[in-house]
Amino acid sequence: MDYASESLRKHYEWQGKIEVVSRVPVQSREDLSLAYTPGVAEPCLAIQKDLFKSYALTRRSNIVAVVTDGTAVLGLGDIGPEAAMPVMEGKAVLFKELGDVDAVPLCIRSRNIDDIVNTVRLLSGSFGGINLEDISAPRCFEIERRLKDCCDIPIFHDDQHGPAVVVLAAVLNALRITGKKSGDISVVINGAGAAGIATARLLIDSGIKNLILCDRQGAIFKDRDDLNTEKQQISEITNPERRKGSLADVMAGTDIFIGLSVPKCVTQKMVSSMNKEPIVFPLSNPVPEIMPDIAKAGGAAITGTGRSDLPNQINNALAFPGIFRGALNSCASDINEKMKIAAAKAISGYIKDSELSEDYIIPNPLNRAVAVSVAEAVERAAEKSGVARYFK
Amino acid sequence: MDYASESLRKHYEWQGKIEVVSRVPVQSREDLSLAYTPGVAEPCLAIQKDLFKSYALTRRSNIVAVVTDGTAVLGLGDIGPEAAMPVMEGKAVLFKELGDVDAVPLCIRSRNIDDIVNTVRLLSGSFGGINLEDISAPRCFEIERRLKDCCDIPIFHDDQHGPAVVVLAAVLNALRITGKKSGDISVVINGAGAAGIATARLLIDSGIKNLILCDRQGAIFKDRDDLNTEKQQISEITNPERRKGSLADVMAGTDIFIGLSVPKCVTQKMVSSMNKEPIVFPLSNPVPEIMPDIAKAGGAAITGTGRSDLPNQINNALAFPGIFRGALNSCASDINEKMKIAAAKAISGYIKDSELSEDYIIPNPLNRAVAVSVAEAVERAAEKSGVARYFK
Repeated sequence: MDYASESLRKHYEWQGKIEVVSRVPVQSREDLSLAYTPGVAEPCLAIQKDLFKSYALTRRSNIVAVVTDGTAVLGLGDIGPEAAMPVMEGKAVLFKELGDVDAVPLCIRSRNIDDIVNTVRLLSGSFGGINLEDISAPRCFEIERRLKDCCDIPIFHDDQHGPAVVVLAAVLNALRITGKKSGDISVVINGAGAAGIATARLLIDSGIKNLILCDRQGAIFKDRDDLNTEKQQISEITNPERRKGSLADVMAGTDIFIGLSVPKCVTQKMVSSMNKEPIVFPLSNPVPEIMPDIAKAGGAAITGTGRSDLPNQINNALAFPGIFRGALNSCASDINEKMKIAAAKAISGYIKDSELSEDYIIPNPLNRAVAVSVAEAVERAAEKSGVARYFK
Repeated sequence: MDYASESLRKHYEWQGKIEVVSRVPVQSREDLSLAYTPGVAEPCLAIQKDLFKSYALTRRSNIVAVVTDGTAVLGLGDIGPEAAMPVMEGKAVLFKELGDVDAVPLCIRSRNIDDIVNTVRLLSGSFGGINLEDISAPRCFEIERRLKDCCDIPIFHDDQHGPAVVVLAAVLNALRITGKKSGDISVVINGAGAAGIATARLLIDSGIKNLILCDRQGAIFKDRDDLNTEKQQISEITNPERRKGSLADVMAGTDIFIGLSVPKCVTQKMVSSMNKEPIVFPLSNPVPEIMPDIAKAGGAAITGTGRSDLPNQINNALAFPGIFRGALNSCASDINEKMKIAAAKAISGYIKDSELSEDYIIPNPLNRAVAVSVAEAVERAAEKSGVARYFK
């Protein structure tokens, strides 16, 4: 199918992929008196007395905003807020269909960090969480950090943490198959944008000790003189041997390659230079860093890509619906590292030992049961880490 | 029924009165490829080339934001953004049920005018219109004016224009019954807040020449030395004889009284001092400026209140769903005076001569057909006044 022209035709037909509907009857004057004036005064006053009651008496326990400025949309780049809306509506569709989360797309007409932070901060009383989406790096890091500081609801930049969680899930299952242990292996990530940096951080938080992050200049190491703030920070906890050199240089002798970068930057020879039974996740989409068949020819034991037409699709949709569902179920004030790791473990654990194989290390992103399992795990992690705030 | 406790109970049960749902199927990978990546890139690019295509390719042609800061909520006053949410959700329910308009409640955590204007301006690319709600006067005037200047979508403060439109509709029908002509009559409005000032302006724009607006100090006249900016401006076009004095003083000898003020400030004697067959609309709610039976005893020919348990309920819900429906149908850039007058005429015209009576001058606010009729009239007025921008 020609997805481009068919999708355009469908979008004209749909006239919007989401819709706001009423959950209450409005047939009689009595209905109106309960849902609206005069009855509505009572829940208003109850919330005024205890702001936290907004979770019980309004939609706040089920609704998130999907916020973008349109600066880093899919493979399209900086296309602006209005043009980003079809993606944000698609995201809202996935939120609802996979996690039963109500999502409102808000595309902001400014690239200014202060504007974006202020807009979200001022609206944070209307939502139970904020999904930041498709905001360019390195701005996305500051925006998320500042919003986490000033808001009392979860702030989650999915382009960072979505891939991080699903990659960790895939890594965990690849290790189950190959029998390697996370404390012993070495990992190379190519691409030091939003996804690369967040993935590096989460893998380290989950117990991986030897991880090298590469950007276009090659390996990132402490005190490299061209690093931005984010790369400086990550250089403190990655590349413990301070290895220098190109991607090809540092890939040699490692166990796992994760590509969050550009098409076709990895060769068969580079895969062959890795340790025995290497795990190769070239996630550039739609054209991977290396095609899985070439990686296999180079010796890869397990591969996974971002593509739906190849085995082991590593797709954000496995993570964000269940993560927000779990955060909302616990009225969480944050989505923290422990909740993300719990989500990754729930995704990997969804596949039983008897089902696990080199071509099935990650569940189908349209499998609704995954989000249920992720939500449960995230809710428990929210409780244990002290960010759950139940209203009942 | 005890609406207060029953409404609170219902709100706990409902857990939100609105919900965001998907309009597209997400069962197969193909569905995902059309609604989301990779297909979605095509509608994104189409909008990037022509921003106006956002009306055709996203929900923008059907979605509005209901924006408040929670400073003037119903009869409750300044209860804050979180506590205002049950009212905003109720408003969203009415938007959907009566006008098939998707409405997203956004409660802003700031009372600062710049903050509110900036937040709405930055989000205006995500909506087809903005309904401002329950923002205190006189701040609401500046906020609406500034937003109208900087946004390319309709900005409509319903607390001003909703009552104005429905009062005008009721006045038109009361004149039909009494045979009086709008150019000949005199009108007194008590209450110079958001609703009073907007109603005065719309009645004058519709052809009423002699109108006096009163505040707590009595009649507003040009050069009264205690007027704020809004009252100064309205003093230029009202009270042509520059009458001074109390409400009771200026009510004597007039044809129509409209109360948008406080309970029980009008006496039977004041109604008796009006011209023959006076029209009396005491709209303070739930306790009117004067009870209709007392106004009738004082000689009132026709009465109308804000209450659903008395004849002739003058209720905003007759106006905003159809007005926004018509504005959205024409992708209007504004909701202007001509569109508001067209809405009022459509509401009044909905009642046929054969049906019209002193107890039926205004349709039932839950009558869905009224909004259809209003939308049609508003759309035609948008075309004639040059603010329609069809995308087809």
